[in-house]
Amino acid sequence: MPEKKGLWQTEYINTDYGQTYRLKRKIVSEKSPYQKIELVETFEFGKMLLLDGAVQTSEKDEFIYHEMLVHPALLTHPKPNRVLIIGGGDGGALRRVLEHPVEEAILVEMDQKVVELSKVYLSSISNYAFDNKRATIIIDDGFSFLKREKKKFDLIIVDSTDPVGKATVLFSKDFYQLAFSSLNEEGMIVTQSGSVFYQLDEVRQTFFNLKKIFPYAYVYLASVPTYPGSLWSFTLGSKLHLPPLIPLSVKKERMIKRKIKTRYYNLEVDLAAFALPTFLKEALGETNSS
Amino acid sequence: MPEKKGLWQTEYINTDYGQTYRLKRKIVSEKSPYQKIELVETFEFGKMLLLDGAVQTSEKDEFIYHEMLVHPALLTHPKPNRVLIIGGGDGGALRRVLEHPVEEAILVEMDQKVVELSKVYLSSISNYAFDNKRATIIIDDGFSFLKREKKKFDLIIVDSTDPVGKATVLFSKDFYQLAFSSLNEEGMIVTQSGSVFYQLDEVRQTFFNLKKIFPYAYVYLASVPTYPGSLWSFTLGSKLHLPPLIPLSVKKERMIKRKIKTRYYNLEVDLAAFALPTFLKEALGETNSS
Repeated sequence: MPEKKGLWQTEYINTDYGQTYRLKRKIVSEKSPYQKIELVETFEFGKMLLLDGAVQTSEKDEFIYHEMLVHPALLTHPKPNRVLIIGGGDGGALRRVLEHPVEEAILVEMDQKVVELSKVYLSSISNYAFDNKRATIIIDDGFSFLKREKKKFDLIIVDSTDPVGKATVLFSKDFYQLAFSSLNEEGMIVTQSGSVFYQLDEVRQTFFNLKKIFPYAYVYLASVPTYPGSLWSFTLGSKLHLPPLIPLSVKKERMIKRKIKTRYYNLEVDLAAFALPTFLKEALGETNSS
Repeated sequence: MPEKKGLWQTEYINTDYGQTYRLKRKIVSEKSPYQKIELVETFEFGKMLLLDGAVQTSEKDEFIYHEMLVHPALLTHPKPNRVLIIGGGDGGALRRVLEHPVEEAILVEMDQKVVELSKVYLSSISNYAFDNKRATIIIDDGFSFLKREKKKFDLIIVDSTDPVGKATVLFSKDFYQLAFSSLNEEGMIVTQSGSVFYQLDEVRQTFFNLKKIFPYAYVYLASVPTYPGSLWSFTLGSKLHLPPLIPLSVKKERMIKRKIKTRYYNLEVDLAAFALPTFLKEALGETNSS
């Protein structure tokens, strides 16, 4: 290994590849009932949250992931009133949801510790969205919550850990069936679905599972530097609307009316995100609804 | 640093961030008159070429970089006969150029050792393009070659190391002026221009330099996992044609007629590559010709 000096934090996506960051300091390292939670401060990306060793978010590049997780679906929906976020304990997705005129955003995070630590250390990411009066924070697992909840949603966002290990249930057909039943007739679901390069099987499986339940299913992409391989997939299921076919003028009008300010997302990027490299199209059996 | 076992190779893009690869073996490590050349075999990416510690190409992901460096410009040009590649000693760009019906492809690589080692160890990347009778290999520096060369080109491809250090001259206004004079009236130049996340200043400088000389200038993007930050920039200058405005049907016809087979590039990806994230548009002063 290299002779670099100082404190470093390395995330290994598998046995053969890692990304390594020089640290200013380690802030927190503790075990919750669910996972190992680490907060570090890096030179390159500011503060960074890791769960079981996997980077979840960083101050410097969180805007890419969160904007692309939230805005394509919410600008597709003409009137999104009620939004559910499963996971997302750092508050970055919640913050972007609340930029839209939703009446209610419910965040269901399994691990109270993640929310608590994010409130203390990552307020630059959540921008105090937890305190917004339209936000409700519930500590529970998303699947159980959704089974109990009777009132329907316009959008369900799954902002969980990767589609491997303990989060697998959130990428299952059973979960998507439950989500389908919990959505209004114009409803959509969007989930982060892992690294296109390092988790291609999981991306494919997520897409196929979702496509079995939702009439329209899409994979779309964004480049997030702290995520391994950077090219990151999102999978979107829709009952009625077709996100890449909504005229850009309609989305633009909504963006202006809702006063959405972004640093990565824009209307050309939205459309471009649905253009998939040939190897990925082939992996999805060219059945991407786009 | 981590307790991972075995042999690892780490590339540091700066003092604060690196990518690390587990190695099957080190193949070659030697100094040429110009640089340190390393060939390693990784578990994740197959064989990999490094110059002065920076990953240049790998067997597993070279197709992304090379397809995106070559095809957007060559499918924009109605009749590309004569192409110059500066750098590109691994042969991957040359191979893609020769997939088009060009009459002559001249590769000018400064470092003979890179060509020699690539011929021996990276034939899966060049696919024996060096032996193609339409290819000419010249060992020289690109700037000097272009000053001497009288016959004009339809396309100049700069496949050099990053726009820092010794390759800087290939990103200068002087070089772009020389390139402009060396191109036919439908001519284009395309250059790799570094990491959007880690070398944003260099991307911007390259674009501004090129835009001062060429009437049309564009930055476009592709995601190459072994390049730091993955989201990689290419800068294209054009005298007459506007690559993102060529109808997809025209490019499609050319692609079929020329029997171009790809694994990353396709027509939607070509168009999408010119859609830039907001922070990048702002860095370029929103003056991207697209």
